[in-house]
Amino acid sequence: MSFFPASLENLIDKFAALPGIGRKSAQRLAFHVLSLPDCEAESFADAVINAKRSVSCCSVCQNLTEGDICSVCASDRRDRSTVCVVSEPRDVLSIERSREYNGVYHVLHGVLSPIGHVGPDDIKIKDLLLRVAADDSEISEIIMATNPDTEGDATAMYISRLLKPFDVKVTRLAYGIPVGSNLEFADDATLLRAIEGRIEM
Amino acid sequence: MSFFPASLENLIDKFAALPGIGRKSAQRLAFHVLSLPDCEAESFADAVINAKRSVSCCSVCQNLTEGDICSVCASDRRDRSTVCVVSEPRDVLSIERSREYNGVYHVLHGVLSPIGHVGPDDIKIKDLLLRVAADDSEISEIIMATNPDTEGDATAMYISRLLKPFDVKVTRLAYGIPVGSNLEFADDATLLRAIEGRIEM
Repeated sequence: MSFFPASLENLIDKFAALPGIGRKSAQRLAFHVLSLPDCEAESFADAVINAKRSVSCCSVCQNLTEGDICSVCASDRRDRSTVCVVSEPRDVLSIERSREYNGVYHVLHGVLSPIGHVGPDDIKIKDLLLRVAADDSEISEIIMATNPDTEGDATAMYISRLLKPFDVKVTRLAYGIPVGSNLEFADDATLLRAIEGRIEM
Repeated sequence: MSFFPASLENLIDKFAALPGIGRKSAQRLAFHVLSLPDCEAESFADAVINAKRSVSCCSVCQNLTEGDICSVCASDRRDRSTVCVVSEPRDVLSIERSREYNGVYHVLHGVLSPIGHVGPDDIKIKDLLLRVAADDSEISEIIMATNPDTEGDATAMYISRLLKPFDVKVTRLAYGIPVGSNLEFADDATLLRAIEGRIEM
């Protein structure tokens, strides 16, 4: 149904193509953009172009950065012997938020997914192996922190097997009951993992 | 917390400023834009600029249009004697969707709101009066279709009073139980209006 002017329909289409935005929300966003002052609409468009142009992947850990090396890899206060492997750049933020981790990262930019036709060459696995295999490598531990779902688990398993020949410890994040949660609402799989992973007090 | 590269933070800020988009959704949208091919990110930015540049208000009814006159006002199959007054351009779409209405529109671009500092001169009330008062006016009925909330009702009331001196019938949309709904879930105000507005069968 093309009721609105063509350029407005086009803008609605663009918003609707974003993840989690339905047709109605897209209309609302497009109307909002039209109601903005010219300069603000332009700075919105510029923000899209600028972010796209200036953000690239860190040459060391593949995290998003504006320079050649990201702020974590550039910092001299991080422990370069521990590498946390995550699937997406946003996961780096999640781990940083815990304020507990002081190592560096490796961002895979995806997980292995036979259904989504994502194979080992489509994500940054090779870059990780090259980091570990480098002559000047200081890496002693690799923490797998992919999401605890089927694809994330399979990816972690696949990478840990590739890392076997190298002299590094491979660990993964603990599974269990979320802090502040309630046993009653924990699903079976989580409870099973929590029991398996029980620790002495 | 400025953890991401500056241009990415900027894009996240822009998304977060849109209505109904929180910080987490904004991050998700920004990451999605970064994952788009260059050409698609550019066409997204262009869509914003283009819509903003080419869409203006119809000189007759103030609805959004790319030309001087909107498609409804330009159509020779619409009944120019009936004008439906709505608060926002998106409301035109809602009424059109009913496929029942064949008159023309007038878009106020807002409602009177003392709290929001929106007075009669801030919305397109004067344009409506000019339409009705024009020498070649064919208008015989004005249907008030502002939203059935306090501000919408007050705006409809205010306008209907201004229209008293003119020889036009002023009506408003019927209030009542939504079709397909359930008496049990209807709120008191709606039920009251439905009883008041009962019609003979």
